[in-house]
Amino acid sequence: MHFASDNAATVAPPILDAIRQANDGYALAYGEDEATDRVERAFSELFEREVAVYLVATGTAANALALAHVAPPWGAVLCHRDAHIETSECGAPEFFGGGLKLVGLAGEGGKIAPKTLEDALRQREWGGPHHVAPAVLSLTQATEAGTVYQVSELSRLADIARARGMAVHMDGARFANALARLRASPAEATWKAGVDVLSFGATKGGALAAEALVFFERTRAAGMDERRKRAGHLLSKHRFVAAQFHAFLSGGLWLDLARHANAMAERLAAKLSAVGLRPVWPVEANLVFVVLPQAVHRNLEAAGACYYVMRRNDVALAPGDVLARLVTSHATTPADVDRFAAIAGQP
Amino acid sequence: MHFASDNAATVAPPILDAIRQANDGYALAYGEDEATDRVERAFSELFEREVAVYLVATGTAANALALAHVAPPWGAVLCHRDAHIETSECGAPEFFGGGLKLVGLAGEGGKIAPKTLEDALRQREWGGPHHVAPAVLSLTQATEAGTVYQVSELSRLADIARARGMAVHMDGARFANALARLRASPAEATWKAGVDVLSFGATKGGALAAEALVFFERTRAAGMDERRKRAGHLLSKHRFVAAQFHAFLSGGLWLDLARHANAMAERLAAKLSAVGLRPVWPVEANLVFVVLPQAVHRNLEAAGACYYVMRRNDVALAPGDVLARLVTSHATTPADVDRFAAIAGQP
Amino acid sequence: MHFASDNAATVAPPILDAIRQANDGYALAYGEDEATDRVERAFSELFEREVAVYLVATGTAANALALAHVAPPWGAVLCHRDAHIETSECGAPEFFGGGLKLVGLAGEGGKIAPKTLEDALRQREWGGPHHVAPAVLSLTQATEAGTVYQVSELSRLADIARARGMAVHMDGARFANALARLRASPAEATWKAGVDVLSFGATKGGALAAEALVFFERTRAAGMDERRKRAGHLLSKHRFVAAQFHAFLSGGLWLDLARHANAMAERLAAKLSAVGLRPVWPVEANLVFVVLPQAVHRNLEAAGACYYVMRRNDVALAPGDVLARLVTSHATTPADVDRFAAIAGQP
Amino acid sequence: MHFASDNAATVAPPILDAIRQANDGYALAYGEDEATDRVERAFSELFEREVAVYLVATGTAANALALAHVAPPWGAVLCHRDAHIETSECGAPEFFGGGLKLVGLAGEGGKIAPKTLEDALRQREWGGPHHVAPAVLSLTQATEAGTVYQVSELSRLADIARARGMAVHMDGARFANALARLRASPAEATWKAGVDVLSFGATKGGALAAEALVFFERTRAAGMDERRKRAGHLLSKHRFVAAQFHAFLSGGLWLDLARHANAMAERLAAKLSAVGLRPVWPVEANLVFVVLPQAVHRNLEAAGACYYVMRRNDVALAPGDVLARLVTSHATTPADVDRFAAIAGQP
Repeated sequence: MHFASDNAATVAPPILDAIRQANDGYALAYGEDEATDRVERAFSELFEREVAVYLVATGTAANALALAHVAPPWGAVLCHRDAHIETSECGAPEFFGGGLKLVGLAGEGGKIAPKTLEDALRQREWGGPHHVAPAVLSLTQATEAGTVYQVSELSRLADIARARGMAVHMDGARFANALARLRASPAEATWKAGVDVLSFGATKGGALAAEALVFFERTRAAGMDERRKRAGHLLSKHRFVAAQFHAFLSGGLWLDLARHANAMAERLAAKLSAVGLRPVWPVEANLVFVVLPQAVHRNLEAAGACYYVMRRNDVALAPGDVLARLVTSHATTPADVDRFAAIAGQP
Repeated sequence: MHFASDNAATVAPPILDAIRQANDGYALAYGEDEATDRVERAFSELFEREVAVYLVATGTAANALALAHVAPPWGAVLCHRDAHIETSECGAPEFFGGGLKLVGLAGEGGKIAPKTLEDALRQREWGGPHHVAPAVLSLTQATEAGTVYQVSELSRLADIARARGMAVHMDGARFANALARLRASPAEATWKAGVDVLSFGATKGGALAAEALVFFERTRAAGMDERRKRAGHLLSKHRFVAAQFHAFLSGGLWLDLARHANAMAERLAAKLSAVGLRPVWPVEANLVFVVLPQAVHRNLEAAGACYYVMRRNDVALAPGDVLARLVTSHATTPADVDRFAAIAGQP
Repeated sequence: MHFASDNAATVAPPILDAIRQANDGYALAYGEDEATDRVERAFSELFEREVAVYLVATGTAANALALAHVAPPWGAVLCHRDAHIETSECGAPEFFGGGLKLVGLAGEGGKIAPKTLEDALRQREWGGPHHVAPAVLSLTQATEAGTVYQVSELSRLADIARARGMAVHMDGARFANALARLRASPAEATWKAGVDVLSFGATKGGALAAEALVFFERTRAAGMDERRKRAGHLLSKHRFVAAQFHAFLSGGLWLDLARHANAMAERLAAKLSAVGLRPVWPVEANLVFVVLPQAVHRNLEAAGACYYVMRRNDVALAPGDVLARLVTSHATTPADVDRFAAIAGQP
Repeated sequence: MHFASDNAATVAPPILDAIRQANDGYALAYGEDEATDRVERAFSELFEREVAVYLVATGTAANALALAHVAPPWGAVLCHRDAHIETSECGAPEFFGGGLKLVGLAGEGGKIAPKTLEDALRQREWGGPHHVAPAVLSLTQATEAGTVYQVSELSRLADIARARGMAVHMDGARFANALARLRASPAEATWKAGVDVLSFGATKGGALAAEALVFFERTRAAGMDERRKRAGHLLSKHRFVAAQFHAFLSGGLWLDLARHANAMAERLAAKLSAVGLRPVWPVEANLVFVVLPQAVHRNLEAAGACYYVMRRNDVALAPGDVLARLVTSHATTPADVDRFAAIAGQP
């Protein structure tokens, strides 16, 4: 009953196999190998245009490199106030970006509403020399609350941002989970909707350590080779990160793994709802947020269930209650889900 | 009728005289001159302890150098959401601080309430490795709203911060105006109340370009010589910035100039109140915030009055109304005040 | 005949096995797992004192994090002018260190002579506010030239640095190769000789992507958790980097692998010498530098030999000659060595 | 007999007068005043094209802002190894530039020879992702050695740099002294010779604290308003820095002051040569470098002469001898020069 994080799960076997198979003979280091070429082509096919791809080992690296590359140091990155880049990367975007500024916006269920973005752009003082300039809109897909932006929602937000000359970044640490939910192609869910740069995560989805920074306009990526290297994020035995992504993308494995994780979250949500514990927000990806009464929380902990208790500004709690974040993954089993729900439903 | 900014005012004559007098013969550059020594001793006398002083030409420099020196790059600076460092320095603290993070807190009349600080420290997620760590409490004295923290308020806030291991910074761009209001010595209003480092402004108070960064614990300033130099803020003909501060501090000139500015603000507030335009916040320094009906605003502009129109989250405006910020200075005359109020009171 | 880089070699099978074995069930992310605890204890045993260890995926990350942590932004890092941090990390130390400065020193065979260090410290202008301050001595062990500092040499250099208040960093991307050569324990070759912080590489030695940043004085590491995280170098599925190091250190595998690589380099050097191609510098680790006449270079390339051609200030070349860097690894075979030497010896 | 620095001299009276005259009534802060407009137009006239000008208070600020603006963080700035930016700004360019790298080149008399630049560009490893990229050539005019680049020399160096896509920066802290020497217009000595951005100093030339950052291609300056502000280098009472430059440029005062300083240096050089103390390098601006025997040095010190003793790699000294740097200024008198030379010539 381990629902702490999709990062706590194993590596999906086909990905581990790919690593093993890549361990054959010599390959030039630092991405000058064939496997890297091949995986870069795979990304261009997947997104139906020539993209520039930079593989790194962590999502924080992908996000921070992306933001630093499209924002000047005096730029502001507008994002949800619960976004990972704002709350959980210990200031990585600020560091990589030479002191840029994150501006957190409120929004129900982890999503920024168009009006919120418009108001922020209209009501605050922006622009030089005294004020930072709005430079990037960063959207998390799937969100930190386990919801998913519809393509039309993305388009509308991106339109507002682009009208102000801002770039649009998507933090897709759980892009697979979002796409498994949407009826849209990878292209439709990204650049066709106005996204300029995507952090495409594989680690939470089943890889060992593999994230891709994807620029949909190749010219925009000029200098990223240097930026990645000097951040220490160019892996020397690069074939092994390429191999992970190759396996992840091959035959739609990434979507299969994500569909399983999403299905487990839905199952968990349904079973919890059945015992009166309705999720706080719509369960559209692989996260379930639910308020647990104190007694239920204790029972679950006593039974060895593992999950994090969170605080969110917009979730009021009765004394003793906790807000539990339950994360499913490719490795979650129906048995675990059912057992968890059964304990949660005990009187 | 120029109420745009105390930065728009002249240099007070005694300070300009001091510059002229300092222009006599040779003096070693970069602060190795006698005038600099003398002014540093004057600061120690003023604050009744051995302080470390670094003179610079702008308030933004003083603030950013101070914050960068007492916060690690992964530190958070908690301040009022309308603080100059948060809204009007184009990201200077973030730049100087290697990507540190500012966290803006709400607060009536530009002041942070102790409970607000306590809640922020208790309710957010803080600390490594994932979250930034609360490193500095920055208080603006006098505030951006023209109010002044009482010494007891400073102490209470500083106690909360220090209990969390945070440093306390005071942005004293209008420290003179605050001190002219308080019944307290410079020492009582700073280090005795828990302030670790002070940006002590003279420019708004009547200097040409002179700000002092004051560390009350000298050891804490180790390395600041280098930090100032590499930020380009060590003036070569340093005697002239020293001369400005010497004149500013001599014979209590700084307080005389501030008392005049404060008195002009009080006079303006009284006269505006008399015609039904009550200031939004208590007028305790040299700023008056007042909501002007559209017609009044137009009359004033037509008459050549100069002031900025501001937006503040906590001031709701009827359609057409504006929130005017009126700033007085050492150069403001009663005649200007009276004329402004008279026009504002016209039907 | 692949002698381009030890980074081009495979992962040693026991290390890949360890990754596979670690892929079992759930483990808390970000280093809060048992495998991480265990490998940290292993480091303390290896170095015979309580050390602080931070695992990352690249050597550049380890070096840059280390230097940024022990030098202030106005610090100078003195290193060999051919050191990896100076020539091949695209400014990573400067970026991580907030704009610190590297000062490259000359030195035969990749080694800094004590007199060179003393002269640099005595003859240049150092110290604030105008000049950067000597903050770190960084020594590469084994060196970029394939030589190895004797423990007595390390001690003498470290003594000079420490007498100036400088920290001592060791770039041990090939620490295993150096230690396999020295008759010294890990402790004797590091902290007992005056080293404060070590970048201990496993990747070149046979891991997939695993480097350890080791602080010999734990208190000195305060804040490194945050620094690593905000640099994007805290791996989420951390158990897999821990597993690599566990396998690397277990049963002396690291030294076995390094001894093989070193032996292959010695064999190559001997065979090349036998055909009149004497290495430029003593072959003490797994690198052989040799000047190849144009015809030999062409023969080798035609036969499919893979290696880099380098430029070094202190190696003069006749027209057409090239300076070849030949790198052996755990995967190099005697057959490959012998074939290379045979071709090189052809008339 | 004060030859320590032109920064130790007074403010030239017409410049101080201009400050006094500017102290009249209100003027909008932060450069939105008429005096600033006027001085910006004066720069465009002076340079015979529409330039973008940013006034700051220190030369280090002008240099570091310029370099950070035209180089990416992974860029290298090639400069003379004795250049002020390399030796005496405590890492300011590295800080402002997000960790860029300075590469110091050798060169007789403070000047970089074209061949030296060509060799550096050809022989080192440059370019991503592993190596920093050559981004800026920075030339000091007049040089740190008191020599002056001829326009043809500037053009040749700039051509080499531009052919590699590098920008060309001129550190003109003593631009006036150089121009007073050259038979060339300001335009010919800068952008017509290939200079992209100029740090145009007035402080050493007789101002109180005034330096101008001049971009000859206005579009290249986009974002500099923000960069200057967030570095704390936008002065609030900006009219006073504008006034200094206005006076400096009016009626050719800047060249008159520089001609005097240069003439004093020539007189000093001639008189010292007459007593057997020939300057080390040609005296083309306001600096004289001369080797003083120990006895002479003692006599001069005993007589109260003030100057700095320097070390330069390419000046070998007999035991006891010192290399004296003698700086003249607008305030130097013939009597001081003659007295100094007389004492130096005593047996």
